[in-house]
Amino acid sequence: MPALDLNSHPGHLARRLQQAHTLLWTTMVSEEVTSPQFAVLNTLVGEDALDQRTVGERVGLDRSTIAEVVRRLADRGLIDKVRDPSDGRRSVLHLNDEGVRVHKRLAVRTARMNQIFLAPLDAAEQTVFLELLRRVSDAAEGLRNPAPGLAAAAGRVSSAP
Amino acid sequence: MPALDLNSHPGHLARRLQQAHTLLWTTMVSEEVTSPQFAVLNTLVGEDALDQRTVGERVGLDRSTIAEVVRRLADRGLIDKVRDPSDGRRSVLHLNDEGVRVHKRLAVRTARMNQIFLAPLDAAEQTVFLELLRRVSDAAEGLRNPAPGLAAAAGRVSSAP
Repeated sequence: MPALDLNSHPGHLARRLQQAHTLLWTTMVSEEVTSPQFAVLNTLVGEDALDQRTVGERVGLDRSTIAEVVRRLADRGLIDKVRDPSDGRRSVLHLNDEGVRVHKRLAVRTARMNQIFLAPLDAAEQTVFLELLRRVSDAAEGLRNPAPGLAAAAGRVSSAP
Repeated sequence: MPALDLNSHPGHLARRLQQAHTLLWTTMVSEEVTSPQFAVLNTLVGEDALDQRTVGERVGLDRSTIAEVVRRLADRGLIDKVRDPSDGRRSVLHLNDEGVRVHKRLAVRTARMNQIFLAPLDAAEQTVFLELLRRVSDAAEGLRNPAPGLAAAAGRVSSAP
């Protein structure tokens, strides 16, 4: 088996893209608040008082990861865990004033980062790139919570010798 | 500042894509050997006896990460660190027989994983997707080892208030 050209492998490129994103995020957006943490703040700006599981689903984080992200945001004083007023047995996440301020500051910076990140592509290519990224990511998240067709396809392949 | 639509943010999609890749890798390729570890094996299949830094550059891993990946591969008995025959002060990485066997087995599985990963796209879209991924990743890696133009652009933006 000769060496493969990994630059034709989507997974290899996905890892490089994510590394590039992390580098840009740290230098241009925040060294303190990570990109998944920002995604949680952003979700609560859109709709406050969601429970942790719902927030995790909306930002695409599994249960253990969202639990860790929420803990760090609470430790950092940007969100509070509070009782759901309509159901005292349930706790929901509340974005506090400092969380709102941090979200606002970082949101401006993410817009600048996106420009640098996508600068190698012209406007039409950027649109295509984002659409293809969404379709591939959405489909793969479907494999996590499998729909019958895809799960069968993945199962067939992964159980091969 | 209202909530942003993060599904139009390349970084958010990059993280989701990488998560999707990790999920597919674990279920379809290997639970033991990670994707970066495989990339190192694959590089040594192509050219044996490279030094660690060169391997890191070829697979797109920074120095601390490649050191950790190499340590794990050596612990797992897939590669050996040996003296460079042409320069005794320098050590190079050597893929051993077990490393060759593992590479071969996993290489076959990655081909299947790639099919599932890219299944949402038709053949023409797959070609475009890989090309755009490469261009964005390459450019962002240029920011790590900056060429004058891009570094200035990133610097201007990151030093903004």
